[in-house]
Amino acid sequence: MIIAVDAAGGDYAPQEIVKGALKASQDYKVDIALVGRKSILNALVKRQPRTPGLTIVEASEIINFDEHPIKAVRSKPDSSIVVGINLVKIGEASAFVSAGNTGAVLGAALLNLGKIKGVERPALASVIAITPDTPLLLIDAGANVDCRPKNLLQFARLGATYSEQVLGVSSPKIGLLNNGSEEIKGNRLTQETYQLLKESGLNFMGNIEGQDIFSRKADVIVTDGFVGNITLKTLEGFGDTFQSLIQQVGYDFSDVPIHGNLLLSITGLNSWVQRMDYTEYGGACLLGVHGNVIVAHGRSQSKAIKNAIGLAKITAERGNTPIIKEEKHE
Amino acid sequence: MIIAVDAAGGDYAPQEIVKGALKASQDYKVDIALVGRKSILNALVKRQPRTPGLTIVEASEIINFDEHPIKAVRSKPDSSIVVGINLVKIGEASAFVSAGNTGAVLGAALLNLGKIKGVERPALASVIAITPDTPLLLIDAGANVDCRPKNLLQFARLGATYSEQVLGVSSPKIGLLNNGSEEIKGNRLTQETYQLLKESGLNFMGNIEGQDIFSRKADVIVTDGFVGNITLKTLEGFGDTFQSLIQQVGYDFSDVPIHGNLLLSITGLNSWVQRMDYTEYGGACLLGVHGNVIVAHGRSQSKAIKNAIGLAKITAERGNTPIIKEEKHE
Repeated sequence: MIIAVDAAGGDYAPQEIVKGALKASQDYKVDIALVGRKSILNALVKRQPRTPGLTIVEASEIINFDEHPIKAVRSKPDSSIVVGINLVKIGEASAFVSAGNTGAVLGAALLNLGKIKGVERPALASVIAITPDTPLLLIDAGANVDCRPKNLLQFARLGATYSEQVLGVSSPKIGLLNNGSEEIKGNRLTQETYQLLKESGLNFMGNIEGQDIFSRKADVIVTDGFVGNITLKTLEGFGDTFQSLIQQVGYDFSDVPIHGNLLLSITGLNSWVQRMDYTEYGGACLLGVHGNVIVAHGRSQSKAIKNAIGLAKITAERGNTPIIKEEKHE
Repeated sequence: MIIAVDAAGGDYAPQEIVKGALKASQDYKVDIALVGRKSILNALVKRQPRTPGLTIVEASEIINFDEHPIKAVRSKPDSSIVVGINLVKIGEASAFVSAGNTGAVLGAALLNLGKIKGVERPALASVIAITPDTPLLLIDAGANVDCRPKNLLQFARLGATYSEQVLGVSSPKIGLLNNGSEEIKGNRLTQETYQLLKESGLNFMGNIEGQDIFSRKADVIVTDGFVGNITLKTLEGFGDTFQSLIQQVGYDFSDVPIHGNLLLSITGLNSWVQRMDYTEYGGACLLGVHGNVIVAHGRSQSKAIKNAIGLAKITAERGNTPIIKEEKHE
């Protein structure tokens, strides 16, 4: 299996991307196609241990974070994002991983891979791991900021299929993120979505609130991309602050010989926060397009990239292109 | 100063409400008017130390959490919520504190106290304390789930005035909660609101993202009540999970004699999480009505009620009824 990796996208490109990709190649036994400027990438790769199954695919252009996504995709056909997406399109790669301009990745996927039947709006499914159990899926993590009820219903179907096929959850419980648990709660969008989900045939458990994310009541949390993005970034902020507080104290916990309980509590907390850490899962999967696309965090360093490639591998192996039937409600 | 307290509202009413109110009376030197069934409250109060300045105001009805707010307010004129709001209206109390049905409290305030000039939609301003500095204000914390840009502009003005007058922040920095920092980011609501805030004359610092809540970039975070509610409950979920992890380990940190750094780190973390704890501030202030109304969390126990009364006191002392000028954009 070949995974195409955008070597030019992200705050730490290309160094950290290359490092993470080579590590993933070893750890997950996948072949890697690094997409970017050959001259730069060749020089970087030479400094690393020889990696069989590594290829470099030339892409002379770069789409920056501040560029308008669709304009950039159209005006830069030789950008790492467009070239990478096209490797998936022509079947040369089983998946594409990018930490670059998210809008451009979505735009290129939409334009070049196309939507699957029955999906009006593809969405980002973010894998988060609050508890040590099976990961939780949040969809939409930020692809669609203004949504209609039928979009959220489709997100629920896409998320349910991914949770079942890729994450191995049997009959995943779907929760609608809302400002109260009762059926009457919500804004116009969630109130109408509630009714569609009730009649959807999915394992819909009702509304869930912000605090329920932690108690892992649902397997798939459905929300629009605006709320999903803010919720995920709030989780991320918590993890960052926690880690920096630990670091400020400057204590090396691995050297503490006694006070086992105390150590346990620290490491327990630490591992809890780590489970919420985006670098552990590394990415969100774009669902609803013909092909496997993983969007990694713009701040991704080698570990996050490595894990995003791992996610790309299981996504490609286990399949993520469910056929959504046309809804009666549409 | 007399603070009216809804003794019948909340998961732990009336016991914990009475306990918190009596403690607040001592700690903050305020007189308390407990609103509820006299027979029950007299019996409860008798078990506590004698508190000068305590009165009990009869309210024979209770509005439950599952009741339709406006219908309940109209059909139960002798409910603790309506009676308490009316004590503020007639000037007998300087503020009203309730942990009861939030919608009913808002409804009663709207119907009986009325909106201040220039405010179309009163909003809940929640005081949160991420850092040890001055508390941060998040508005709207849940009063208005579907908003228009001009509503958010008014929330910003209300929040700025409260932050300045009550929390003592000079020229408070206003941040718009959004899914990206750049001006072009956002859904329709936030994109239009951004333009209004830019021209508002407020100290508008631009968009802030979920993770920025922790780094305390803004003094006032403006958002609609749907997103505000979910964000606050997500913060609350952290606090709860953190506390329960600490408790699961069952370690009494106060007894740890050595490993000062380690202890410091634990207590540092703990106090950080406590600062996000709603029981520390105890409530959100309803801004934009003629009168001081504090909505406490439904789960409030005595400590949260006590702190909500403290918030009511400083709100009443320092004033929270700014006159909002009619907007050009309206």
